[in-house]
Amino acid sequence: MSDSELLALQTDHLETLQQRYEQALAEHGFDSLLISSGAAPMRYADDQGWVFHGYGPFVHWTGLVDQEFSWLLIRPGQKPVLWLFQPVDFWHANPEFSPEPWHQQVDIRFIAERQVPSIDGAGRIAVIGDPAYLGDVAGEHNPADLLTAIEETRVRKTPYEIACLARANELAVKGHRAAQNAFLAGASEFGISLAYQQATGQREAESPYHSIIGLNEHAGTLHYQYYDVEAPSQPRSLLIDAGVRFRGYSSDITRTTAAPGEDRFAALIHGLDQLQKRLCAMVAPGVDYADIHRKTHQGLAALLVAAGIVDGVDEQALVSEGVTRAFFPHGIGHFLGIQVHDVAGKRTPSPEDAPFLRLTRTLEPGMVVTIEPGLYIIPSLLDPVLAGPLGKHINRAVIEELRGCGGIRIEDNVVVTDDGHRNLTREVMAA
Amino acid sequence: MSDSELLALQTDHLETLQQRYEQALAEHGFDSLLISSGAAPMRYADDQGWVFHGYGPFVHWTGLVDQEFSWLLIRPGQKPVLWLFQPVDFWHANPEFSPEPWHQQVDIRFIAERQVPSIDGAGRIAVIGDPAYLGDVAGEHNPADLLTAIEETRVRKTPYEIACLARANELAVKGHRAAQNAFLAGASEFGISLAYQQATGQREAESPYHSIIGLNEHAGTLHYQYYDVEAPSQPRSLLIDAGVRFRGYSSDITRTTAAPGEDRFAALIHGLDQLQKRLCAMVAPGVDYADIHRKTHQGLAALLVAAGIVDGVDEQALVSEGVTRAFFPHGIGHFLGIQVHDVAGKRTPSPEDAPFLRLTRTLEPGMVVTIEPGLYIIPSLLDPVLAGPLGKHINRAVIEELRGCGGIRIEDNVVVTDDGHRNLTREVMAA
Repeated sequence: MSDSELLALQTDHLETLQQRYEQALAEHGFDSLLISSGAAPMRYADDQGWVFHGYGPFVHWTGLVDQEFSWLLIRPGQKPVLWLFQPVDFWHANPEFSPEPWHQQVDIRFIAERQVPSIDGAGRIAVIGDPAYLGDVAGEHNPADLLTAIEETRVRKTPYEIACLARANELAVKGHRAAQNAFLAGASEFGISLAYQQATGQREAESPYHSIIGLNEHAGTLHYQYYDVEAPSQPRSLLIDAGVRFRGYSSDITRTTAAPGEDRFAALIHGLDQLQKRLCAMVAPGVDYADIHRKTHQGLAALLVAAGIVDGVDEQALVSEGVTRAFFPHGIGHFLGIQVHDVAGKRTPSPEDAPFLRLTRTLEPGMVVTIEPGLYIIPSLLDPVLAGPLGKHINRAVIEELRGCGGIRIEDNVVVTDDGHRNLTREVMAA
Repeated sequence: MSDSELLALQTDHLETLQQRYEQALAEHGFDSLLISSGAAPMRYADDQGWVFHGYGPFVHWTGLVDQEFSWLLIRPGQKPVLWLFQPVDFWHANPEFSPEPWHQQVDIRFIAERQVPSIDGAGRIAVIGDPAYLGDVAGEHNPADLLTAIEETRVRKTPYEIACLARANELAVKGHRAAQNAFLAGASEFGISLAYQQATGQREAESPYHSIIGLNEHAGTLHYQYYDVEAPSQPRSLLIDAGVRFRGYSSDITRTTAAPGEDRFAALIHGLDQLQKRLCAMVAPGVDYADIHRKTHQGLAALLVAAGIVDGVDEQALVSEGVTRAFFPHGIGHFLGIQVHDVAGKRTPSPEDAPFLRLTRTLEPGMVVTIEPGLYIIPSLLDPVLAGPLGKHINRAVIEELRGCGGIRIEDNVVVTDDGHRNLTREVMAA
């Protein structure tokens, strides 16, 4: 999609938001809504902060992730008013604000001071955003029911949002390719992180979440958060879970690579990749997302048997006795959008058999989810299984061999379409 | 200095801290002090945070910048007790904690839960740290007078702290050399930032402050906070202000480089460098730091005349009429330590002629300061001068030529010694 096509979709996006927000305000008895962009807090007892990522609803309308101390007013039947903070400031550069078509749909006013806009005749007004920056602005601050309704406006992505998520995938795939090449060339975790940044043009501070880059055993720590500066003497595996933010929308992709000669681990990656593609194929309107999670455990049971990790146990028992959960302790995925773990995924409690699942809804067209099965050698989870009644069925030699490879996760970003799904990640990988 | 020499100094450091803290507690009537390490907050309405940098007093004792949910108890005449949070957690890796000599001086207890330690017989206890993580732990939370006294224990650095700051300079100088080479090879701001990270082995998230990397006009924005991914078609200048954190202690170094052929700008850099060295030479016990700031303005006046930027005005008038301040609007520097702008610099108000100065004390042995004169072409500051009574004495053609180079800052880290100073930055640059 060309840039101009994407920008044209954005004007439709704003019209849709106007409708959705008007409905949410009417249902909760509000006449208007003031959204604060927020600002970056400082570290405690320090004067250093970190790069700002704006408040979700503000980004939902504007796509502006780096505008601090700015405000957006939504009223039924009227143009939104956007107060953009652009100080005369020789200390800092102002965020870039080049003309785009959607600017015609919004009444844009530049403010040079950190001030709350004065609003007349707004009726019953709700004010939402980080309380640290709302001060004593008149109105009802963060009313819970309205916030829930506003989160719900983010669940079914507009074509503009899907186009942004597709771009975020295109950019991240470049990074994943560079990361894999760097790994195969012997780079350290730190070096792979630089290669990922170089290929995506995205600095660490702008990334939608902390990129996970684990070599060997580190691949078995789900959210491994360090980067070793030295490569291991024998690199065996790379797990990288990293995204890119494009106009406020995040990709969230994981790939696992075996070093040459790691045939058993490579076969296991292949098996999980096949399973992951089957799970992605389940994505369609009307499907209970928790069923994809359940199917993952069944698939993992079959894979554990096929790979010779487990022998002589019924596959169903591997699931019911918690063996698959020791290898795959997290959920199959989550909503994706402005937040990496996007809002409104758990309107109902988690089912008993999937307590950590971040998304417990029935899929609808426009939803965007991740599908991210994993298979890890995590000693603190496997040791109780090995010591338990099924322990004798687990091939300890294979576990021991795989332990040094840490684990596998394969994660795509998938849109629920009217009649099935669109895999934003694989369509780029295949291109 | 070898690693083992540095670690030996650290054991002396802890003894000094015990004395200083005992005195501070006694003077304010407390029997004991509990210090919270704090934890990394999440972004508002998101579940993503950023890399944690621990609370100053906790780092002052332990050097552990990445230990969340940990506690340190200080009592007169007793070993400090350190509760280190090390959960059994397959989601995250625990921070590294390899044996070091200072561990013998501390009673270390590992805790697997996020809990407040239970403390008996501690008498009147003060509890300090980020209130978000203090909960309802018994004791007086963040008593202001005691906090001031504890900040004061950080002003005169111990030999261990100076050794750490020296290491932080050694590492950062590698980065500055790599940055300069990348610039001269045509790299973008983004590319220079990757080169700096590569050479220092420090990722962006670990850096003590947001590295400022500005090419051309961007060098004139004091805290320029973006990195262009494309290099300018004609690279003319690089200003890089970047440090490295070593065992909790930060370097803070700025260098400016002219592209080949930028002879006027290069001459101006040379002139400011000469001035900066004279200012560093002023650092000694008994010197009022504000006098170094004042001397900067006098030196800049002479430089503006020598460079042909101003003509026909008395140098003293350039200072008194605010012309030098239009070219150099910030202060000459600040304390340096665990915080980049280290604590306790402004025990008295700023003098009238230096309202933005972050450090207003008389220098004492052990203090560590930055010396960072600058000379910038900032239109919002120069335009009023050009329009004013002295405007006709300013060479607009030269200003216009230099505007595209942005500005110059040269910043070293300087220790006040018993009889003068030690420049931690130049001693590495010269080596």
